[in-house]
Amino acid sequence: MSKHFHEELAELNNDILKMGTLAEEAVARSIAALKSRDVDAAQSVIDNDSCIDELELIIDEKCLDLIARQQPMAVDLRFITTGMRLNNELECIADLAVDISQHVIEMADEPLLKPLVDIPKLASIAQKMVRMSIDAFIARDIEIAKMVLAMEPEADALRDAIHKELVDVYIARDPSSAPRAVQLLLIARFLERVSDHATYIAEDVIYMVKAEVVKHHPERL
Amino acid sequence: MSKHFHEELAELNNDILKMGTLAEEAVARSIAALKSRDVDAAQSVIDNDSCIDELELIIDEKCLDLIARQQPMAVDLRFITTGMRLNNELECIADLAVDISQHVIEMADEPLLKPLVDIPKLASIAQKMVRMSIDAFIARDIEIAKMVLAMEPEADALRDAIHKELVDVYIARDPSSAPRAVQLLLIARFLERVSDHATYIAEDVIYMVKAEVVKHHPERL
Repeated sequence: MSKHFHEELAELNNDILKMGTLAEEAVARSIAALKSRDVDAAQSVIDNDSCIDELELIIDEKCLDLIARQQPMAVDLRFITTGMRLNNELECIADLAVDISQHVIEMADEPLLKPLVDIPKLASIAQKMVRMSIDAFIARDIEIAKMVLAMEPEADALRDAIHKELVDVYIARDPSSAPRAVQLLLIARFLERVSDHATYIAEDVIYMVKAEVVKHHPERL
Repeated sequence: MSKHFHEELAELNNDILKMGTLAEEAVARSIAALKSRDVDAAQSVIDNDSCIDELELIIDEKCLDLIARQQPMAVDLRFITTGMRLNNELECIADLAVDISQHVIEMADEPLLKPLVDIPKLASIAQKMVRMSIDAFIARDIEIAKMVLAMEPEADALRDAIHKELVDVYIARDPSSAPRAVQLLLIARFLERVSDHATYIAEDVIYMVKAEVVKHHPERL
């Protein structure tokens, strides 16, 4: 196999790392905008998304081109197609940061319903899961990927706790707060979906490394 | 190119068609369960999801195997990798049917908040979009794919109308209805995400057929 091919695979690693960093930053910046009620910062997350979309397309084309030119063997082919899946997942994560930012802008004129504690906590877990899932891909490390899967129940539980508190406490006490409560509830759901995408990445990495079917069979881990 | 290869491509067409049918049926059955308040029917959507997950993995492996063995030329390679993306999107759609079914089960003990009109309407649009996006792939038909993209604003508008009515009318009038209202609001969001996945499929089909970047540039259509 030519040295050139390995350089191209290393470049794919770097591209995915860059997409991962951009997606994670988009989430971090959308939550910072929420905390500081900063409409401009939220708008800049939305504006920046087109760069992430462009990068997704470029990486996708590079992968197709790599497969067509180099006709890689099974193990490299699986690495490249996994890279294509990750690329797509990361774009979805960036889209969720856009969703969050849109809600930040919608909520800007009204006072925040409550001090934000659990939402930043959920955001921090979700971001960590994204970062670790990409690390797992770069290092082809199943153990890191498994740690990502192990974090998912915590993200689910936090989302459910946020949901319950907003509906059973805030809306019940003051129904006029419902529009703002629902906004926060949706933001919590977007963040939990970020963590979902991180688990998909982790599952893809495990699948790639073990070439074993664990995606829908966590008990086989 | 061997006849065998074309047979395998035709088989991929059939596999995607089958995934599409299963995913669309899962959505239809989850909404039927919601309308009839049928917990068993909702549970059967959830139970059946493992078959869809299995099929996704089988199709994915077939695609990888096809690329590795046949080393297809650019146009066929793009068809196969698009098939892999569609396969993944359809699995996500089936997962949304599971999400809906879980909420149907959670809501089973309480009376329905309101007669269902807009949710079944949104479901019907979303299902139609899924069906048409798969038709577009099978027929490699950009016009059908464009029709799917043109339907998306209607799905968005219906979701927003459902959201607004539930928050501004139902919760405002009776805050104790908030838990049930939020469940319906989330179901509407799940359905709108089904329509999102159908648009991703349609975009992938257009991209495949035109091999042009339209995904993030609808103005270039």
